[in-house]
Amino acid sequence: MVANSFYMDLCLKEAWKYQGLTYPNPAVGALILNNNKKIIAIEAHHQAGEAHAELNVISKALEILGDKKILNIHSASKKHQYILENHNNQFKDYTIYVTLEPCNHTGSTPPCSILIKTLGFKKVVIGSMDPNKEASGGAKLLESCGMEVLKGVLQKECNQLLEPFKKWQKNEPYIFFKLAITKNGVYTGGTISSLNSRTLVHKLREKIDLLVIGGNTVRIDKPTLDCRLCGGRPPDILIYSKRDDFDTQIPLFKVKGRKVFIEKNLDIIKKYRFIMIEGADVLMKETSDIVDHYMIFTAPNFKLGKTIQLDLKLKNLNQYQNESDTIEWFKKI
Amino acid sequence: MVANSFYMDLCLKEAWKYQGLTYPNPAVGALILNNNKKIIAIEAHHQAGEAHAELNVISKALEILGDKKILNIHSASKKHQYILENHNNQFKDYTIYVTLEPCNHTGSTPPCSILIKTLGFKKVVIGSMDPNKEASGGAKLLESCGMEVLKGVLQKECNQLLEPFKKWQKNEPYIFFKLAITKNGVYTGGTISSLNSRTLVHKLREKIDLLVIGGNTVRIDKPTLDCRLCGGRPPDILIYSKRDDFDTQIPLFKVKGRKVFIEKNLDIIKKYRFIMIEGADVLMKETSDIVDHYMIFTAPNFKLGKTIQLDLKLKNLNQYQNESDTIEWFKKI
Repeated sequence: MVANSFYMDLCLKEAWKYQGLTYPNPAVGALILNNNKKIIAIEAHHQAGEAHAELNVISKALEILGDKKILNIHSASKKHQYILENHNNQFKDYTIYVTLEPCNHTGSTPPCSILIKTLGFKKVVIGSMDPNKEASGGAKLLESCGMEVLKGVLQKECNQLLEPFKKWQKNEPYIFFKLAITKNGVYTGGTISSLNSRTLVHKLREKIDLLVIGGNTVRIDKPTLDCRLCGGRPPDILIYSKRDDFDTQIPLFKVKGRKVFIEKNLDIIKKYRFIMIEGADVLMKETSDIVDHYMIFTAPNFKLGKTIQLDLKLKNLNQYQNESDTIEWFKKI
Repeated sequence: MVANSFYMDLCLKEAWKYQGLTYPNPAVGALILNNNKKIIAIEAHHQAGEAHAELNVISKALEILGDKKILNIHSASKKHQYILENHNNQFKDYTIYVTLEPCNHTGSTPPCSILIKTLGFKKVVIGSMDPNKEASGGAKLLESCGMEVLKGVLQKECNQLLEPFKKWQKNEPYIFFKLAITKNGVYTGGTISSLNSRTLVHKLREKIDLLVIGGNTVRIDKPTLDCRLCGGRPPDILIYSKRDDFDTQIPLFKVKGRKVFIEKNLDIIKKYRFIMIEGADVLMKETSDIVDHYMIFTAPNFKLGKTIQLDLKLKNLNQYQNESDTIEWFKKI
């Protein structure tokens, strides 16, 4: 039970909560056990340009071990530096689990491999190996200084986290479909998801380049499709529609700083890198060949209404409770 | 993060996997931390008359600590005795988490309170207090011998596990509704759930007294409603139907050792204690006033078909992955 896979699974669960939010960086989860195998902290990478999962979990551990000063340091580089100077050898003989090989280069943050080495961790347990040539070599470096490195724990599951990142590396668009339904598959009749879930969707809208939506949704629901629940840059919009008879006086067309396209096809997607599609069965059918992941918000209630109707075989990648809603990530099989 | 609630949540997740299967005993989960707070084992109570969660988790821990002989001992009483004689003070200063106060009386197994006391645990963390007067007093006994006892961790969540047991204590029927749907709420068109999920349903059929089913399901699907996937005693059947024009040559009516009722009302439920209703929206509507819990199996696919249509506000109590299916327990709010 308390095998390496148990701890890696905790990392995976934490990482999936930030899937999409970390783009173009990979979603990564990490966990620290002390020398006696007590769980000290579980953390994830939250946002590109900010602290990696390793830095977040080490910061959290330092705080739990009694260092409250770390709470006042916000830049990743400064956190990194502060930890190097203030770790007091507390991490000696500790074990760190991470869903992805620790990076070995200075990007917007200093290399995690050096941090782990300097702090004297005894063991590093890794899920996936870094597919980014520039940043890889972390495991090799740690092995070369005598650290025990265990690779490939829940590797298949950890690899799934990397899909958006791999697409980005290949200069290909990463496309995910966001669906919100009740427990019985109803998507109509007003708000489906909780405020918490809708805020997460707005945070994702801030990260994406392009939001794709069906023409009927625009005509009937008149959504604004901005990020007002969290603030931030609104995405460009593609209204996918055979007709172009839209009331351009609705708020959607008035949001500043973005383009709105009305198109009969999806060709424009190719010009973007990070795309969310929000819709229901009609759009699911039209896009099933190009969608990488499905992110499904399920409210716990049953209600009368129109249900999603299509044939689609999916595999559940991960799921978690977001207050009353369940959030699940799927891929096509 | 690694608060008491984190460990109790692991106990809860393990316990819910056996909800229904332990009737009339409560579903209970337990976890052991060693003196350094390393997780040693997580276990649950599996079946009435067999080892309690505490005995199961201690047996598992003993096995993990190197005692393989325990694997050959199957009766709860003998396990209990073996542990008393062979624990070698290995549990001294350990912590045990349990969703329900350890029992303090000799039922079909010896008292867990004595076992925990004798093994020298330093600390006991408890979710719910035992509502059974006869078995309660475990916490008091452990406190009186100087053990640290922490009560009420995730108490509300732990109390939810006890619903069937509380109904049994009050001589009232406990009724749960089992529903199997696809991700888009479809319940028709052949098998919905995986073999693993269907086997679990057969195990539950073996535990219940009465299975309630709608007349149309019998007419159209001609189910046998036995426990063939696991073996065991088939439940009595109530076919709830306005009409009684059934083909009594179908296998359902040929299963030995059970009664089959055909009734226009649900009155007969009052004569039973542990009732599962298997059906869809029609039966959900008819029974929403009397159902205690909903157990919903959700397959990961979308398919074309008839979806559940009703208004019902639910609260998610717990959920877990059973291979490809998600199993969730809900109650009405």
